[in-house]
Amino acid sequence: MKKISFAKLKSIRLDDPVFSYRQEQLRKVTLPSVIAKTEETGRIDAFSLSWKEGMEKKPHYYWDSDVAKVMEGIAYSLALCEDSELEKLYDNWVEKICSAQQEDGYLNSCVTTLEPEKRFANLTLNHELYCAGHLMEAAVAGYEELGKTKLLDCLCRYADYIAGYFGKEEGKKRGWPGHEEIELALAKMYKVTGKEEYKDLLRYFINDRGSEPNYFLEEGSLRNMIVYRNFQAIEPVRELKEVYGHAVRMVYLLCGMADLAELDNDTELFKVCERLFEDITNKKMYITGGIGSSFNAESFTCSYDLTNGSLMYAESCAAMGLALFAGRMFLLTKENKYMDILEKCLYNGILSGISLNGDEFFYTNYLEVDENLQVYNSGAKTRQKWFSCSCCPTSYARFIPQIGKFLFAADEEKNTIYLNIPVACCADLSCGNQKILLIVEGNYPYDGNIGVRIDSDGEFTLNMRIPSWCSKYEVKLNGTKLDSPVIKREWKKGDKVELFLDMPPKLIYADSRITGNCGRTAIVRGPVIYALEEIDQKCPVREIVLRRDIPLSLAPLPASFPENVKGIAITGKAYREKRENDSLYTDDPGTLEEISFLAVPYALWQNRGESNMAVWMRYKY
Amino acid sequence: MKKISFAKLKSIRLDDPVFSYRQEQLRKVTLPSVIAKTEETGRIDAFSLSWKEGMEKKPHYYWDSDVAKVMEGIAYSLALCEDSELEKLYDNWVEKICSAQQEDGYLNSCVTTLEPEKRFANLTLNHELYCAGHLMEAAVAGYEELGKTKLLDCLCRYADYIAGYFGKEEGKKRGWPGHEEIELALAKMYKVTGKEEYKDLLRYFINDRGSEPNYFLEEGSLRNMIVYRNFQAIEPVRELKEVYGHAVRMVYLLCGMADLAELDNDTELFKVCERLFEDITNKKMYITGGIGSSFNAESFTCSYDLTNGSLMYAESCAAMGLALFAGRMFLLTKENKYMDILEKCLYNGILSGISLNGDEFFYTNYLEVDENLQVYNSGAKTRQKWFSCSCCPTSYARFIPQIGKFLFAADEEKNTIYLNIPVACCADLSCGNQKILLIVEGNYPYDGNIGVRIDSDGEFTLNMRIPSWCSKYEVKLNGTKLDSPVIKREWKKGDKVELFLDMPPKLIYADSRITGNCGRTAIVRGPVIYALEEIDQKCPVREIVLRRDIPLSLAPLPASFPENVKGIAITGKAYREKRENDSLYTDDPGTLEEISFLAVPYALWQNRGESNMAVWMRYKY
Repeated sequence: MKKISFAKLKSIRLDDPVFSYRQEQLRKVTLPSVIAKTEETGRIDAFSLSWKEGMEKKPHYYWDSDVAKVMEGIAYSLALCEDSELEKLYDNWVEKICSAQQEDGYLNSCVTTLEPEKRFANLTLNHELYCAGHLMEAAVAGYEELGKTKLLDCLCRYADYIAGYFGKEEGKKRGWPGHEEIELALAKMYKVTGKEEYKDLLRYFINDRGSEPNYFLEEGSLRNMIVYRNFQAIEPVRELKEVYGHAVRMVYLLCGMADLAELDNDTELFKVCERLFEDITNKKMYITGGIGSSFNAESFTCSYDLTNGSLMYAESCAAMGLALFAGRMFLLTKENKYMDILEKCLYNGILSGISLNGDEFFYTNYLEVDENLQVYNSGAKTRQKWFSCSCCPTSYARFIPQIGKFLFAADEEKNTIYLNIPVACCADLSCGNQKILLIVEGNYPYDGNIGVRIDSDGEFTLNMRIPSWCSKYEVKLNGTKLDSPVIKREWKKGDKVELFLDMPPKLIYADSRITGNCGRTAIVRGPVIYALEEIDQKCPVREIVLRRDIPLSLAPLPASFPENVKGIAITGKAYREKRENDSLYTDDPGTLEEISFLAVPYALWQNRGESNMAVWMRYKY
Repeated sequence: MKKISFAKLKSIRLDDPVFSYRQEQLRKVTLPSVIAKTEETGRIDAFSLSWKEGMEKKPHYYWDSDVAKVMEGIAYSLALCEDSELEKLYDNWVEKICSAQQEDGYLNSCVTTLEPEKRFANLTLNHELYCAGHLMEAAVAGYEELGKTKLLDCLCRYADYIAGYFGKEEGKKRGWPGHEEIELALAKMYKVTGKEEYKDLLRYFINDRGSEPNYFLEEGSLRNMIVYRNFQAIEPVRELKEVYGHAVRMVYLLCGMADLAELDNDTELFKVCERLFEDITNKKMYITGGIGSSFNAESFTCSYDLTNGSLMYAESCAAMGLALFAGRMFLLTKENKYMDILEKCLYNGILSGISLNGDEFFYTNYLEVDENLQVYNSGAKTRQKWFSCSCCPTSYARFIPQIGKFLFAADEEKNTIYLNIPVACCADLSCGNQKILLIVEGNYPYDGNIGVRIDSDGEFTLNMRIPSWCSKYEVKLNGTKLDSPVIKREWKKGDKVELFLDMPPKLIYADSRITGNCGRTAIVRGPVIYALEEIDQKCPVREIVLRRDIPLSLAPLPASFPENVKGIAITGKAYREKRENDSLYTDDPGTLEEISFLAVPYALWQNRGESNMAVWMRYKY
């Protein structure tokens, strides 16, 4: 299976209305905030292994993963923008992590401190392999982006230890990760080190998972069968017919499966990935790209069970995981449908989870919030700075700086540059040994007129994605209309490509099997899903009835947003269905009153205080 | 607080289209079925206290309550209709229960067998006081309906033991029931025995609950705070501002509170009951009378959080509990609003839980079922014969035979007979030392023309309830129109009252704060809530759009129902919103096709196999 590659982080300089703002906030606010939280909660000190009973800040089994994710984010951020203070902190954290490594290579601050004799004794719950995976990802990021080797060396020793510990061979422990993650990390470790043991271990973790006898049942740490189901360990992964269980675990497993399919050229495994991608995106995904619709164990549920309110989940980390999986599938297939989902997640279900000011986060990304919303687990009506299980903030710390790389992909063999998401940027790419400079202009995703200036000579194919949401497009080269968005030619510096993607505001309907959305519609423009936030309306959101007979119009973002936040609002005429009777149930048919409404990009909601909000609105025929 | 009384069970002979059928099925099918299940699962043998480790059918902490509830049902059933075989079985069960009583009065098959040294050690989870309460209710029923004293004597000894065990006094255990029930049972025990200790214990359990220091936190058996919240023990009951936690527990507690308010003439406590009744019925009740909207801990959630599908609950036992609470509040106030809710529960949320054939039960009473429904806890798309926690089947066994008593109430002091629910029956009542014979005729609730023939001479007031769903009514006495449904006179045998309650089929709308029902409507006629079952439609239920511009019509029940099942269907014109595109999300606006639909009483759904169903339907303006 031949894979193409996304752009290198350093090669992209963003100048678009959405991501460039977010990356600036990342450096200014998000990273400083999560670094402070990581330190003040004891996560860094835990590596000193000096915690004793009775002291505060008792190490927790998932702490190492949070540290690792922040470090991965710092590495990417430093790649994008130098910062000597930040680099010093990074190096300091590396020292502390490495100091906690045991002679034999084992590395886990919590187990080494609390129960050093119980290494890998409770794979069901203790997240050691999950933490190891995130540390490996951080190490690879530091090495690839910054050329730093110390953490990578440390994690290689740990990976060697794990590879010697786990497997089906005599004398090894036949166990599986309780929270998948190390699989995709091992693929990265293999790619940077070339060590076959890491690929072998990845293959073992993928292929052995769910086979008989079932490791998790044998281990005996399970509290109940729901947990067991939550681990994707009921059957071997190749037999999976649909996704189930904890959504983040599921998509991380799928990332690992896609990686192994690539490394082993394993088309059978790839077909499982294809099947499960279709299952997610055709049956179990919110219109925002959010997945894992039940608060109950943060999990996938059955097909079309995608409620909007109190009981939904759509964890931020799960949307990021789906984007990572979709990205891998795109690189393996070059098929636009994968990039369509990645883009959907990026602009909606992922960005919704982080505040515009950069340091507040949703764990649950509701599609409808009302003053009567009941929150469960880590759900909240407003974004929070931190959570007791704080995976989401640290996921943003490492995800936001990576966004640029998804914009382009290069196929060395076919000498092709893919323009995946045409946002304004300068791109310093390479393909087939040539340096390719591109300047993308425009206001995408808020405008469909995109300019691509070629800033270097060279022969290559420019393959511009036409998104599935777009039903009309136009391509011009140096002013001349072309039939195809795929242009192969000898480019000259100064060549100008114009791409027009028609993006009228549209009403979108859900499959009626999502019964809660029957009779409802969502407003969408291009890749951006919209929401009605109560702060912008003249009446409660729940009383607004959209009209299908009157076109929607574009409008500026309300002035209540900070001036430097860019975006386009959508406005139109609607009705308010009003009922004087305030009984719980009444035969009063109510009255319809003409009003107007204003919708804002879903990802921007709840940045102006607490407010009711809905994506799916009822409509009048 | 002066209380009026419901009719005695034996005084009512039903001849109506709904309850008489259900009571016949109770005798023929329900009781034999739950008796067989109770025996074959080991619940009766458990009283022999002979179970040993390694044997099958290990006694369970709630088993005694199931036995008790079945016995209570048998007692009522025997009161309605003699059956020497059934009476023999009843006496035999009494023997077995009494044989398990310990010398000091203690009686619990599970604890005595498994952990005899741990009496009342885990009130949080072990349900001993709950079981005791149900046994007391069974004993009172046997005594009151059949004049049998053996079980009552046994339970008096147990109640004495409990009264000596629990309390705030020096040397007593300051503990509270983990599952409320014994409170209302103690009120019954006090009423039949006159023993002040029982009233004192009831008062202690009500007044001490939730005070500091919190017993449940002290006991230390709590698994987590959700459970704690589930017990209504966060604050003293008099401070409760709203209902919360496990719905069955909550309404049983409210029954006990209403009982104590009556016995102690405690108006403060009564006001709490009033407030919480309003909270339930104005903010936390399905249109069917179902309560406890979340499968998560079978609990109440926040106001207006009343979803329809996978994640809802509305346990059968909770609807029965609400009816029992509403009945108590009616007797204390004579206010129709309480009887409105009792009637709503009876015809909808309660009857929906038991099959027409009498031996299959819903635990969860969904308002919408789709082939994609995800079931949680004891939820299921079809009624089940039994559950591992089988409270619902045994609740029906004791509830169905009691229904007749709710039809009438007598106010001795005011010499008034209340006709609460005007279904066809013969009633042999007494009031103010006179015997009053009434014959109610008609086809209520499927017809609003009701005849009441007076079959005895006497002076009394006949107070006929005008339900809140009825906006137009007429009363005639011997052919002459009267202004009021309250008729005080010297009645002569042969007097005839005609009551006409207008009951056109209506569309009902929910408060928009139930956001899932925005833009939806439910079909209702009189007290009966209707549902669209897919078996009766020409397309999937979820594709049907009701019309507000075309009146609804009455129709016979479909022939697919057994011939002896009576009822009225409702039919009308509608649209089918059809969409060719089967993507999860699409901009295809769909087409509207004219079709007709047929709705059946909600309580009758899923008696003709598995089928999709919905109560709340979208509509076209």
